Amino acid sequence: MTERLEALKERLGQVADIGHASALAHWDQLTMMPPRGGDARAQSLATLSRIGHELFVGDDTERLLDRAAAELNGGDADGDDARLIALTRRQWEKARRVPADLAAELSHASSVGQEAWVAARAASDFAGFVPYLERNVELARRYVECQAGADGFDCAYDVLLDDYEPGMKTTEVNRLFAELKDELVPVIARLSAAEVEIDVRPLTARFPVEGQRALVEEVVTMMGFDRQAWRIDDTVHPFATRVGQGDVRITVRWDERFFPGGLYSAMHECGHGLYEAGISPKLRRTPLGAVDSLGIHESQSRLWENMVGRGRPFASVLAPRIGQLAGGELGGLDPETLYRAVNRVKPSFIRFDADEATYGLHIAIRFELEQALIDGELSVADLPEAWNERYARYLGLQVTDDADGVLQDVHWSAGLFGYFPTYALGNLIAGALWERAGAELDLDAQLAAGELGPLREWLGEHVHRHGAKFTTPELLEREVGGPMSVAPFVHYLKTKLEDVYGLRLSE
Amino acid sequence: MTERLEALKERLGQVADIGHASALAHWDQLTMMPPRGGDARAQSLATLSRIGHELFVGDDTERLLDRAAAELNGGDADGDDARLIALTRRQWEKARRVPADLAAELSHASSVGQEAWVAARAASDFAGFVPYLERNVELARRYVECQAGADGFDCAYDVLLDDYEPGMKTTEVNRLFAELKDELVPVIARLSAAEVEIDVRPLTARFPVEGQRALVEEVVTMMGFDRQAWRIDDTVHPFATRVGQGDVRITVRWDERFFPGGLYSAMHECGHGLYEAGISPKLRRTPLGAVDSLGIHESQSRLWENMVGRGRPFASVLAPRIGQLAGGELGGLDPETLYRAVNRVKPSFIRFDADEATYGLHIAIRFELEQALIDGELSVADLPEAWNERYARYLGLQVTDDADGVLQDVHWSAGLFGYFPTYALGNLIAGALWERAGAELDLDAQLAAGELGPLREWLGEHVHRHGAKFTTPELLEREVGGPMSVAPFVHYLKTKLEDVYGLRLSE
Repeated sequence: MTERLEALKERLGQVADIGHASALAHWDQLTMMPPRGGDARAQSLATLSRIGHELFVGDDTERLLDRAAAELNGGDADGDDARLIALTRRQWEKARRVPADLAAELSHASSVGQEAWVAARAASDFAGFVPYLERNVELARRYVECQAGADGFDCAYDVLLDDYEPGMKTTEVNRLFAELKDELVPVIARLSAAEVEIDVRPLTARFPVEGQRALVEEVVTMMGFDRQAWRIDDTVHPFATRVGQGDVRITVRWDERFFPGGLYSAMHECGHGLYEAGISPKLRRTPLGAVDSLGIHESQSRLWENMVGRGRPFASVLAPRIGQLAGGELGGLDPETLYRAVNRVKPSFIRFDADEATYGLHIAIRFELEQALIDGELSVADLPEAWNERYARYLGLQVTDDADGVLQDVHWSAGLFGYFPTYALGNLIAGALWERAGAELDLDAQLAAGELGPLREWLGEHVHRHGAKFTTPELLEREVGGPMSVAPFVHYLKTKLEDVYGLRLSE
Repeated sequence: MTERLEALKERLGQVADIGHASALAHWDQLTMMPPRGGDARAQSLATLSRIGHELFVGDDTERLLDRAAAELNGGDADGDDARLIALTRRQWEKARRVPADLAAELSHASSVGQEAWVAARAASDFAGFVPYLERNVELARRYVECQAGADGFDCAYDVLLDDYEPGMKTTEVNRLFAELKDELVPVIARLSAAEVEIDVRPLTARFPVEGQRALVEEVVTMMGFDRQAWRIDDTVHPFATRVGQGDVRITVRWDERFFPGGLYSAMHECGHGLYEAGISPKLRRTPLGAVDSLGIHESQSRLWENMVGRGRPFASVLAPRIGQLAGGELGGLDPETLYRAVNRVKPSFIRFDADEATYGLHIAIRFELEQALIDGELSVADLPEAWNERYARYLGLQVTDDADGVLQDVHWSAGLFGYFPTYALGNLIAGALWERAGAELDLDAQLAAGELGPLREWLGEHVHRHGAKFTTPELLEREVGGPMSVAPFVHYLKTKLEDVYGLRLSE
């Protein structure tokens, strides 16, 4: 009866199977692979990527889509099958508009650009990086041109943003980020001016790695990590990946002299992992079973890392265990000290290390600059100046070294334009979900008791299980009951910072 | 100038790239994967296998072969390119003769059969396993029929043997195994009758696993293991795999109360790994860069495990380190005690645990029985009786439990007929190489000094670098100067056993 739909799903399942192999190969490369295996791995990954792409963009897929749609004959537009056909068709059409030559050029320039970036950053040599970045901007603009006239894109940047945050518009992000800046810039200035002393020495106290491992294992297990279906391994730049159903992998980096690096990044990656693990098994091996919105993905990691992990209730779970497992200077660490230390706001040059308040400004800067690059309003050569001017204006910092400035992130070197905003959108989405979950659950008491199950289940029900079935705006409308807004996040953040700093931040 | 050859190589390279992904997925499944990831992994592997197969057997491959052959226009018939075209064409033709339906049936029956075997062995229930084995025999015979009339196969079993040992004939293996039985059966009887006491208690003395790991790391490093291009991990059934160039992985299983299990299987797997690592980089991403003869592969693992690892010279390296690392009952272990203990000959039911002398008889039994099954001279129902009769005749053992008898090996349940003989052929090939290497190197002195580099280099030069370029008979002719024979192996074994037992075994 659903023979044609099954044929479509079988094709998409094969594409997903290749994705499974690629995800494993990436994970292995960053955790297990011997160093000299890199060339062969790159070649294998390129072949998998090419074959997966060809399997997906072929004429066959369109025929399978048409036949499946005819078989479905309308039906419930919000049903899994109708949504699957709609999403697949959208992805297929977008992929089809990119000529194979351009796809190959994009992929090649991305590899070459990343290599050039590694060298340029090491030497703090922006000039040497200019030709590579110019090439990436040019290719991104050609990619945008391929989509000219397609439905749903109001400007060039919309095409790029859509790859990472489907359904979101540049104008909407501009509006949200403007509001966010208006809220955050004065808060940060106020906190800096107040000169409240916050003792952050515990963060760099010695905590042997074996103890940190034990702590992290306890915490992620509370969150939902399960050895039957998860792994945790060491790596250099932590990430999470779902290789396949029942196989979620998170990674951590340890520093004996900075335990929050391991602890909070493990909670962050475990948040990503819970999302991947929680997608409904019904959707597996289809595009609906993969995460499409990086903003929602990031909302899950940040919610667990910051709202749970750096929140007051859970500090009363963490602090005693840190004290027991670390001993020494951390012996007897009290929750209040931990809570205040991990919530200090301090403008800094590096996005990756930024606190919750300044983080959004790092993103807003990148978002403004990449729009200007794509629109041709800013030349690559002028980028450092524009970067530094914004860091001074938004964060009060004078950038003196491009390695800690415009060269700090890998994204543009890899041709990833439109990606950055999803990091800050993740905070906004997390804010909305946190507010709603707080209204429905007795969160403070649960988190203080180390009972993380109710929150995980709430997120599973309202977010995880849907996979890519809904766009971010749709999901928020359905599950939170409103459009994207900065208010819940700003409210959450100001309330916490007022508590930490003992200051009044709202009018 | 070699544009058409390059086009062929690119196609074969893509097939190899998919093989890379499959090898990694298999390794991961047996070492790293969380238990609940199995279903998704099986699906991904099936898709990779199907896509790799389709890429290889397509009409395209023939066209690429024809064009490359025309471009090469004869040339040196022993050159890499001519050999590549010849081997690829042979593999392509053999694969093409198997209808897709039969290939799918073979693959499915293999999975189902292995599952049934696990249950049947656990319950020692041969009757319950009969229908699965009958199905596998029937499919193997249909597979043979597909190749009817093809060049190079003189009998049904030749078709199967060729999958694991190209260029080898059933009549030749029958002749070799008959000679081997004639030599080994009286030796084993003589040793049993002599009632020489050999102290094997050190083998089951306590040796903490961490110490065993340190020992194995030292030994495989002497052999050529290199962290830049290898990994070593724990698993249940040890194996070795080359994921890709610069990426060889071996696995070990540890038992605190049986250190030879870890030590010698690590040397065995490292021997396989050295072969894979030593294939000329020129041949990578082509069928010449993959090992085709399981006999040669096994010769490498057995040479390192038995001829080096269980030899008298290397015992003087191993014993002191075992004594230091294990302490306790093994403290002060002397080389002579170790050497004698690890070379005791004792007929036993289980092939996997067999000593060097009885091992060949375990294989000869399986080889005879599977030929009879394929030729229709033996019915599956009569298999246990035929099995037990031979164990009594060749090894003097009365099998009373099918789990330790006909049900002990996974191979037939997986449809692997023609595979077993390669284990014993490996010993014969190792014998020939060992004799030749001994004539060219000062092996005793080198091994006693722990200098394993000269032997590795000799094997690299004479065996490893060639990959699949030559068949086993060709390789032996070129590098050892003669056809396959049992004499060198029998000479090696008798000499060692005379030394261990203090008996005269040759006439």
